[in-house]
Amino acid sequence: MSTGALPGFRDFYPEQFAQRAWLFERWRDVARRFGFVEYDGPPLEPLDLYTKKSGDEIVGQLYNFEDKGGRQVALRPEMTPTVARMVAARANALRKPVRWFSIPQLFRYERQQKGRLREHFQLNVDIFGESDVAADAELLAVACEIMRACGLGPDDVVARVSDRRLLTALVRGAGVADEAIPAVFAAVDKIERESQDALVKKMTDGGVPASAAGRVLELVRASDVEQLRTEYAGDGEVIAALERFDAYAELLGAHGVRDYLRLDLTIVRGLAYYTGIVFELFDAKGEFRAVCGGGRYDNLLAALGGVDMPALGFGLGDVVLGELLKARGKMPSGAAAIEFWVAPVETTHRLSAIEVARRLRADGLSVEYPLKAQTLSKQLKAAQAAGARRVVFVGDAFLERGEVEVKDFATGQQQASTLHLLALRAQEHA
Amino acid sequence: MSTGALPGFRDFYPEQFAQRAWLFERWRDVARRFGFVEYDGPPLEPLDLYTKKSGDEIVGQLYNFEDKGGRQVALRPEMTPTVARMVAARANALRKPVRWFSIPQLFRYERQQKGRLREHFQLNVDIFGESDVAADAELLAVACEIMRACGLGPDDVVARVSDRRLLTALVRGAGVADEAIPAVFAAVDKIERESQDALVKKMTDGGVPASAAGRVLELVRASDVEQLRTEYAGDGEVIAALERFDAYAELLGAHGVRDYLRLDLTIVRGLAYYTGIVFELFDAKGEFRAVCGGGRYDNLLAALGGVDMPALGFGLGDVVLGELLKARGKMPSGAAAIEFWVAPVETTHRLSAIEVARRLRADGLSVEYPLKAQTLSKQLKAAQAAGARRVVFVGDAFLERGEVEVKDFATGQQQASTLHLLALRAQEHA
Repeated sequence: MSTGALPGFRDFYPEQFAQRAWLFERWRDVARRFGFVEYDGPPLEPLDLYTKKSGDEIVGQLYNFEDKGGRQVALRPEMTPTVARMVAARANALRKPVRWFSIPQLFRYERQQKGRLREHFQLNVDIFGESDVAADAELLAVACEIMRACGLGPDDVVARVSDRRLLTALVRGAGVADEAIPAVFAAVDKIERESQDALVKKMTDGGVPASAAGRVLELVRASDVEQLRTEYAGDGEVIAALERFDAYAELLGAHGVRDYLRLDLTIVRGLAYYTGIVFELFDAKGEFRAVCGGGRYDNLLAALGGVDMPALGFGLGDVVLGELLKARGKMPSGAAAIEFWVAPVETTHRLSAIEVARRLRADGLSVEYPLKAQTLSKQLKAAQAAGARRVVFVGDAFLERGEVEVKDFATGQQQASTLHLLALRAQEHA
Repeated sequence: MSTGALPGFRDFYPEQFAQRAWLFERWRDVARRFGFVEYDGPPLEPLDLYTKKSGDEIVGQLYNFEDKGGRQVALRPEMTPTVARMVAARANALRKPVRWFSIPQLFRYERQQKGRLREHFQLNVDIFGESDVAADAELLAVACEIMRACGLGPDDVVARVSDRRLLTALVRGAGVADEAIPAVFAAVDKIERESQDALVKKMTDGGVPASAAGRVLELVRASDVEQLRTEYAGDGEVIAALERFDAYAELLGAHGVRDYLRLDLTIVRGLAYYTGIVFELFDAKGEFRAVCGGGRYDNLLAALGGVDMPALGFGLGDVVLGELLKARGKMPSGAAAIEFWVAPVETTHRLSAIEVARRLRADGLSVEYPLKAQTLSKQLKAAQAAGARRVVFVGDAFLERGEVEVKDFATGQQQASTLHLLALRAQEHA
């Protein structure tokens, strides 16, 4: 028998599953509080859904194959094409703005490295149909509140935010022709990984004047709002973009998450389809890859052949966030726990013990009892191994007057109780 | 752009997702109350995990392919091989009995028909390491309590239960040689789909005496415990099997689910690996396929090359149960709902409205507000479209003395309130 999962795939034993569930619960709770509703699509989709968006090069990274009906199909590497397809199919019927989220498992065939498996779960939060900057603020607020719900404050996580429109205006202001702007974006996208010379060369090769190339790198590295405001006071396009950023920051203040925000023009997000504010969340110490990334992509739905609708969204994976939480001691252990172990005192009390278990379970409590005849000392060990908080002894007193003895492992106390009282007390302490 | 999912695959729009979540919530809650813990494995596994269990014929029904590393892989068609692999890998470290459940999405390439898609979600509940019949009762109790949690009582759903050991004893008692017993099982498995003559021929072809063939069909059709007890009073093997069934029924009585139970010897479960009590849950009117099926398979783990451990489990899919619940009017609509719509009275109150939204969200409440400037009458329409229970008007009174006006859509009442009172009241009514 194969004893392990495929390389890059994870088995979720109960401890790992509990940690995954803990994460998902926080994601779902914040999304729900923000009025987002959950959807899902198929993990297997037509291959052309991905090649139409990303070109044929994407195929090299996909789990793609021909199905038994001769269809070219692929395991989903990302959720955006699916959600774009779903929104387009019901564009007229859906209430706008569409506020949706999903937690798909995604698949990429790529070399394994730290924080990069071949599958991961990714929270996708999107807003369709709203171009107001308030939507951009709402979106980042969701991401920041998720960090907060996981115990990560502004000292732990930073939201590095840029606006492609601001960068475009600055680049134009620095004397770069429109045809050369993509070369600037490509260089800035590599600013943390390539040398100054390589970056300048990338730009000048793309038609950027040498003087402008150096200036642009200085500007994005500084990312100082007040400096830009002074320097570009006469440039209407830059000033308009800065004012949009001010409004964005003010909205994030009302959301109570402004402390996470940092203007950082080095963030461009590799994907070509972003059109406005873009962001990535990083741990403040800079030890991990981006925890989360997203932004506005107003033209993508139309480009995919669907509907013309402004759009923005982010993706937040379970792997990097999980590593960060573990490194910061914020991830719970995932150890199993039940409320009660019901122990029949003698074998003759087995049916009574099941009846007691049934009544406690009917009250919503988690309960185990021995599935075979066991001595009390073995049962006590089993109860502790199961993570039981209390043991309920069911003996003659139950048959005679409905009473049980309850031992609390935390306090060591043992006392007589009725089932009714027991359930009440357990629910109070839950 | 492709506008739909692949044939046999489902898009879960928020309404459908909410129904799926409603189902999963009930599955998880019952499993938790019974002390089962959740696990998951990869949706993509090595192909031989399935061919070793089911033979090469299974490949015709799989989504299988060669990955970019030259590995033969398949989308999981069932969970048992994965869980057998996972349990075997940690057999010594795991607390016994192992009480695990999972809700995997499963994939089969098969012809589409009602209730059979190419993917579905299936609750898998298993117990490993316990041969006592109390484990069999615990397992069926989980399935029945899930029905109850979905609003389906013993008048709606019947648990048709057999015991392969009882059927074997009866067949031997009817004069069938051991070599011919598989032919009897194969015939009984088809009892609802083939004619009497075809069934008899299937058995006699397999070495069953013609007289015994007819008798066996009569016995399994009657499935009358008292008749069997009288008729086989002298047959120790049959009497032992009947006593085991009596104990099982008594345990189910203590579990409070005996009313669901019906002895039905026509249930053998197609799969060859079952060894003891087997069961299927059906709607009482007999309109749908089996809702759930499972039983004891004590030899499977050893046969798969893993560990030798008694085992039992069931699978419960989302499709048939969903159809049944819809047919009986027991499936909630899945319509979206939020607690509050926060309405800025004038555009100047937008930031205050976000602050109010933030404070209500921090109290765990679900809140929307307009992402762009909107008139109050448009906002009221948007609030109702969002399924809001209440609208909170944020105007000058909030700036002056922290007061808001609250309109309750259900009662039509409108009154002034502070945010604190508002959150308290909403939580009480949640």
